[in-house]
Amino acid sequence: MKILIATDSFKDSLSAREVGLALKMGFLKGSPGHTIEILPLADGGEGTVDAIVDITRGKRISLQVMDPLMRGTEAFFGVTGDGRTAVIEMAAASGLEKLAFSERNPWVTSTYGTGQLIAAAMNLGCRRILVGIGGSATNDCGAGMAEALGVKFLDGRGRPVGKGGGALGGVDRIDVTGLDPRVGETEFLVACDVTNRLTGPEGASAVYGPQKGADKQMVQQLDANLRHFAGKVREELGKEIEQVPGAGAAGGLGAGMIAFLDAKLDKGFDLVAGMVQLEEKIRKADLVITGEGKIDHQTRFGKTPWGVARLAAGIHKPVIAVTGSMESGSEVLYKEGVTAIFPIIERPMTLEEAIRHAREMVERTGERISRTIHIQP
Amino acid sequence: MKILIATDSFKDSLSAREVGLALKMGFLKGSPGHTIEILPLADGGEGTVDAIVDITRGKRISLQVMDPLMRGTEAFFGVTGDGRTAVIEMAAASGLEKLAFSERNPWVTSTYGTGQLIAAAMNLGCRRILVGIGGSATNDCGAGMAEALGVKFLDGRGRPVGKGGGALGGVDRIDVTGLDPRVGETEFLVACDVTNRLTGPEGASAVYGPQKGADKQMVQQLDANLRHFAGKVREELGKEIEQVPGAGAAGGLGAGMIAFLDAKLDKGFDLVAGMVQLEEKIRKADLVITGEGKIDHQTRFGKTPWGVARLAAGIHKPVIAVTGSMESGSEVLYKEGVTAIFPIIERPMTLEEAIRHAREMVERTGERISRTIHIQP
Repeated sequence: MKILIATDSFKDSLSAREVGLALKMGFLKGSPGHTIEILPLADGGEGTVDAIVDITRGKRISLQVMDPLMRGTEAFFGVTGDGRTAVIEMAAASGLEKLAFSERNPWVTSTYGTGQLIAAAMNLGCRRILVGIGGSATNDCGAGMAEALGVKFLDGRGRPVGKGGGALGGVDRIDVTGLDPRVGETEFLVACDVTNRLTGPEGASAVYGPQKGADKQMVQQLDANLRHFAGKVREELGKEIEQVPGAGAAGGLGAGMIAFLDAKLDKGFDLVAGMVQLEEKIRKADLVITGEGKIDHQTRFGKTPWGVARLAAGIHKPVIAVTGSMESGSEVLYKEGVTAIFPIIERPMTLEEAIRHAREMVERTGERISRTIHIQP
Repeated sequence: MKILIATDSFKDSLSAREVGLALKMGFLKGSPGHTIEILPLADGGEGTVDAIVDITRGKRISLQVMDPLMRGTEAFFGVTGDGRTAVIEMAAASGLEKLAFSERNPWVTSTYGTGQLIAAAMNLGCRRILVGIGGSATNDCGAGMAEALGVKFLDGRGRPVGKGGGALGGVDRIDVTGLDPRVGETEFLVACDVTNRLTGPEGASAVYGPQKGADKQMVQQLDANLRHFAGKVREELGKEIEQVPGAGAAGGLGAGMIAFLDAKLDKGFDLVAGMVQLEEKIRKADLVITGEGKIDHQTRFGKTPWGVARLAAGIHKPVIAVTGSMESGSEVLYKEGVTAIFPIIERPMTLEEAIRHAREMVERTGERISRTIHIQP
C-alpha cells in the first residue's frame, strides 16, 4: 500500500515532519511493507516556512530586522531548495508575538520589518516571494513594508508621516520613485484565508483592531485612516484596494502588497499545496493521512486537513485525519471526504500532558490505523 | 458484516449495555447495513449481576441483609431468565463500599450478608449460584456466610465465637449439623481471579488486610487466626483449604465456600463467558468489538477485553478494544490477539468531563471504527 502522510504541525508540540515521522513509525509497526511518503504541510500560517524549507530541502535564514515598534529583533524566512522562491511569515517580523501584551498598539506598530524580510529575500536572488500574513500586530496597510522597500509617505509639507496606523491619516502624497526596482521583477503571492475588506464594519480595524490593542475610539480612527490611505492609493497609483476581499487581512498588509508590489492574494493552503505538488502526490497514494493539532469548526476555513480532504475526495482517495484535539464542528470533515478522524489522546489528561506525550501517542495512533485497515469487511 | 459487541461496563459511567448501544449506533452511522449483536459482559467483578441479568433477560432482586458490621443494608442479586441460576456479587452485601473509610476493620467485619443472599437465592429455587468475590471488606474466611446458612462456630465452652476475622482464633468446634440442606443440592461457583492462598506472606491477611483497615499487628493476628481456622476445618470437616490457590480471595470467602458449600473456584471471565455462550457467538461474527473503562497492565489478569481477545484470537477473528483510558501496559493486548485499541478520548480533558461525555465519545468511536475498516488495503 502506498501511503502519503501530509499533516500540518501540532502547535506547541510537534513539527509537521515530526508528526509524519511518528505516524510512519507507528504505521510500519502495525504492519510492515508499506511505502510511506511524508510531506510536511502548512496553510500559510505558522509553520509554513519550516514546511516548505523541509520539503524542498531549502534553507531557513535568520536575520535582524525591526519589530513592530521599530526595535531590533531576530526574524527568519525560508528559501526553497532551488533558491528561487522565498517564504515569509509576516509574524516573524511584525507579529503580535513580538510584543508584550501591554505594548500592543496598532496606532504605532509597523510592518517595516516585513519589508526588510522581502528586501533580504530579493538580495538572495529570490524572484518569487510568498508571504503568509497571519498573526500581525499592525494596522498600517503595509505602509511600513513599502517604506522599507523605498516608498515614501509624505504629509502636506512633504515630510515623512512616521510609522503606524495612526500616521496614515496624515498621508498627503505617496512617492514611489524610490521603490526597489527588483520589485518589478518579482512575483509576490500573499497567503490569506480571510475575506475581510480593508475598511468598514467587517474591515481590518473593526474586526482585528481590538485584539491588537485598539479601543473603540481608536478602531474608528484607524478605520478612517485606512479609508483615507486607500483614497490616496486610488488617486496617486490608480489602484483600488478598499473593496478587495482579503485586503483587510493583517491590518491591510495584503492591500499594501497589492498596491505597491502588485501582489496576488490566494488561499494559503492552495499556495503551499501548489508549491509541493500535493495533488500529484495524492494521486499516487492509496491512502492519505492528514492532521493538525486541533480540528474544530474553523478547520473548514482553509486549514490543512480540510484542504487535503478536498483534494483527496476529488480523486476518491481515502483520507484519515489525526489530531490532538477533536472539537465540536470537526464532523464537517466527514462531509468533505475525510474517512475517519483519529484523536491521539489515550486517556483523560491535561493539555500539558498531551503535549509532553504527543510523539508516542501519534505513533500509537499510526499503529492503530495501520492495524485497523487490515480488517477485511 | 456480522459484528459482535461484547464489552464490559465503563466504571462510574456506562453499563456494558450502554457501551454496546452507543458503539452500535456509531458503527451504523459510519456504514449502515451490518448485523450487530450486543452482548454485555463482565468478569465476575462489579457489573456481573447486571450483565447476566441483561443477557438472559433475568431479574435483579433487591433485599435487606446485614452489612459487614451487621447493620441492615440494601443489597441485590440476579437470577437468570430461566430462574435456575443466581448471580451474587459479594460486595453488594459485604463490600468495602458499605463502610465509611473509618469503619474499615477486618477484625470484626463479617460475610454474614453474603450468606443471606445465598439463602435468598435458594429460596427462589436457584440451584446454581455464582458468587463474584471482589471488593470485600472482610477477613473471616466466609465464617459469617456459613453462619447465615446454619453453621455454628463455637468456643471451648460451646458458645458462639461472634463475628469477624478476630473471632476465628477462638473457634474450637465447627457444628455443621444445622447447615441448610438445600446447600447439598446446589452447585456453587466462585468467580475469582487471584491465586493467593489463604495464609502466609501472600495470603489474604498480608496482601489484602491493609486495604481493609488492618495495621501490621492486626495483619499478623488475622493471619494466625485464619491458620487456626483452616486447621479446625481440616480436623473437623477433613477439608484442606489453606493451600488452595484463590482461597485467599475476599478474606478467605473462597476458602469458606469450598469448606462449607463444596464450591468450585474458577476465573470470573470464564464463568461469565460460559454462561452466555461467548465463544459460539464469536464464531458467528466477522469482527468482535470489546472494551472496558480502563485498559492497563492489569487487563491481562482476567479482565473482559483480555478474555474476549484470547477467545477470538483462538478462532482467528479480528478484535477491536475500546476504552476510556488506555494506560501503559495495554500493549499486551496486541500480543493476545487484539487488532487495535481505540481510546474514546477526543481531546485533553478531565476524568469528570470524560465520564460526562462518554456516551457520545463511544458512539463516535464506533463511527470511526466503522468508517476505517472500509478502507481497502
